Amino acid sequence: MPLDPALRDRILSSVEAGFAEQIAFTREMIRFPSTRGDEHTVQDFIFRALRQRGFTMDRFAMDREAIGRHPGGAPFSDTHSDAPIVVGIHHPREETGRSLILQSHVDVVPTGPAELWTHPPFDPVIEGDWLYGRGGADMKAGGAANLYCLDALRRIGLQPAGTVYVQSVVEEESTGNGALMTHLRGYAADAVLIPEPEEEMLVRANTGVLWFQFEVRGVPMHVREMAAGANAIDAAYRVIGALRELEAALNREKIGRPHFEDVAHPINLNIGKIEGGDWASSVPCWCKVDCRIGLYPGMSAEELGKRIEAKVLAFARADAFLSNNPPQVVFNGFWSEGYVLEPGSEAEAVLGRAHQGSTGKALKSFMTPGYLDTRVYALYDKVPALCYGPISENIHAFDERVSLASLKRITGTMALFVAEWCGVEAIAE
Amino acid sequence: MPLDPALRDRILSSVEAGFAEQIAFTREMIRFPSTRGDEHTVQDFIFRALRQRGFTMDRFAMDREAIGRHPGGAPFSDTHSDAPIVVGIHHPREETGRSLILQSHVDVVPTGPAELWTHPPFDPVIEGDWLYGRGGADMKAGGAANLYCLDALRRIGLQPAGTVYVQSVVEEESTGNGALMTHLRGYAADAVLIPEPEEEMLVRANTGVLWFQFEVRGVPMHVREMAAGANAIDAAYRVIGALRELEAALNREKIGRPHFEDVAHPINLNIGKIEGGDWASSVPCWCKVDCRIGLYPGMSAEELGKRIEAKVLAFARADAFLSNNPPQVVFNGFWSEGYVLEPGSEAEAVLGRAHQGSTGKALKSFMTPGYLDTRVYALYDKVPALCYGPISENIHAFDERVSLASLKRITGTMALFVAEWCGVEAIAE
Repeated sequence: MPLDPALRDRILSSVEAGFAEQIAFTREMIRFPSTRGDEHTVQDFIFRALRQRGFTMDRFAMDREAIGRHPGGAPFSDTHSDAPIVVGIHHPREETGRSLILQSHVDVVPTGPAELWTHPPFDPVIEGDWLYGRGGADMKAGGAANLYCLDALRRIGLQPAGTVYVQSVVEEESTGNGALMTHLRGYAADAVLIPEPEEEMLVRANTGVLWFQFEVRGVPMHVREMAAGANAIDAAYRVIGALRELEAALNREKIGRPHFEDVAHPINLNIGKIEGGDWASSVPCWCKVDCRIGLYPGMSAEELGKRIEAKVLAFARADAFLSNNPPQVVFNGFWSEGYVLEPGSEAEAVLGRAHQGSTGKALKSFMTPGYLDTRVYALYDKVPALCYGPISENIHAFDERVSLASLKRITGTMALFVAEWCGVEAIAE
Repeated sequence: MPLDPALRDRILSSVEAGFAEQIAFTREMIRFPSTRGDEHTVQDFIFRALRQRGFTMDRFAMDREAIGRHPGGAPFSDTHSDAPIVVGIHHPREETGRSLILQSHVDVVPTGPAELWTHPPFDPVIEGDWLYGRGGADMKAGGAANLYCLDALRRIGLQPAGTVYVQSVVEEESTGNGALMTHLRGYAADAVLIPEPEEEMLVRANTGVLWFQFEVRGVPMHVREMAAGANAIDAAYRVIGALRELEAALNREKIGRPHFEDVAHPINLNIGKIEGGDWASSVPCWCKVDCRIGLYPGMSAEELGKRIEAKVLAFARADAFLSNNPPQVVFNGFWSEGYVLEPGSEAEAVLGRAHQGSTGKALKSFMTPGYLDTRVYALYDKVPALCYGPISENIHAFDERVSLASLKRITGTMALFVAEWCGVEAIAE
């Protein structure tokens, strides 16, 4: 049932009243350089912030075995984080409303060369409407909004009338194992909202993502005998060419896929990292390449994994050097499938009304071709998993920034969504 | 004047008599993992070995300013070695013969992945005729031979009748600044012999070598926006393609160059090392590539350096992404020119007779397309600079190895060469 307009206005005013504090909290979060494996301190910060607000707290580690057995579990590499997952649990006085998970991740991607940034990457500078910083948009602004949308209700004496789990996870940028772990621990709710930076739109469909590394090894030698040798760096690039053919084939397969066929290039292969050779005057005998590729909803990670291996193997067989040195393909991260948020759910209707109430505009939806933790809740809990968040620029790039005006609008949407989805009750005196 | 056959036989027998000790010494040298910058301890080992034999010792550092002013001096990068150069000086009782420099280098190239080696790279294993180990062939076997060819004379009561400088240098694998420094310090002689692994042949002509690094930088982004971005790793490969065109043009220019036009591919461009990107799911914004290219004798390093810069710049101008992100070219090592050993010198005639005496075969000569320190003595001292040494396999590769039978033969050649070139005198009682 739509919110009473008076309540709606009180909630939005309360978001406004708390917004200066919300920005300060977001900036504190950005100051933690929480790249992969280094999320311990920011998770402790979130833990304390939730406990201080009266949540019942749960903090737990990944269960590698359980994740390994799950079809959406990603392989554990040496660089896998062992930072804990933090969940704050709110129980209403009387459970009259629907339950909800508000989720976010605190891990951020590497900054790249610091000198390419206008400001130091973990210095949360504000210029005009933009708040700068690595991980500010993706997604500490959303993480803070998860707390501050509930604070906005509390400020006017209200709290959700259903159970709310506030989940702060890690490994969203590399495996998705953090979100999966909350599912494996048994957390579930009637809907999930993740405020990733999605341009104030709702994610209708999302690709899965696979990470893999391939390594070429071969006989090295002195450059004086170069003609007899084979350069592993050159060979690696030939393998990249073969993988680009697979990417093109996958993009041709968009035909007949509702949320993908109108997108110019829905499946992206990214050559993200390369390292090879030791010495300018030695023909390189090794080259490692880190790749990331998308997959359509309905295609299993295993199927695409096999296609990647088959493509590399077939190419290698026909290549004079590689046939003697078949490249090794290792899946070392994301092993995740895509999802579609089927239109027509009550959760989406509630979010649409909340968005209209906060922004004055109709809610649009779109397909996004990057990994999202919502896949865990959509695929394995089979509940409406809403990914919706603020306007941003340059995520995964330098000068990452999030719009503060947009952040306020989406926090308003979130507060209205919680109030209508869970219902509200007065906080006990 | 050719050596008396009886003396020749006594000298060769003496080489034979000392060979077990020579192998043991060579193996000791191989145990030092003297990659660039880590040559301090092996240089101290050589210093002690020379002093123990009665040489007058000189040990000195590089003079960066003097090297910087010299046209054959290479730029100093952060990885430049600061290990000392060691020279042992032999003065005869009466200076009746010609002077000689016996030179070698102790720096070795990186091993690459240790698991690609049959034995650990710095473990000097002997199997049949082969002595294995990184830097054994290139060129610790030759470095030991410099001492043991003189030991062979001493064992029969003789020593050179001319001044002999035994030089042990560093930076031969990266800049050639070590050899240049001996020249700048004033060392000079009537001839130079460097026993690099040259298949028991004499180097007639030798390319110069330039090292350079180029770096591509550009706007990174999330893969979801990949079409708008530009991948620095892909862009780096396009630059490599342009450099391959320059390599092809240089190889076409072999026409009319006596020692090069019959060689299939005299100028090699090696893509030796690559590094780029930080994260599989971020479009890479940087990629660095380390290259090495040869140049003909008579072509100046400056001329080729300008052609490299011009090629990269012209290519970048025509490339949508690179025109906004022109790659930086940095010359970070070898800046050396090639040389020709003109036939007809007395030094070559003496070496030919010594080779015939030791191996029973006529001395052959050839062109080699890798850097050699002989260039310093050929180009700047303008004396016969003889590069001649043992049979080897896999230098700069894994399972580098040197033939012990060949090492004995070339040590015999060297001892005969010293005896005829410098003359001999009895050691004072």
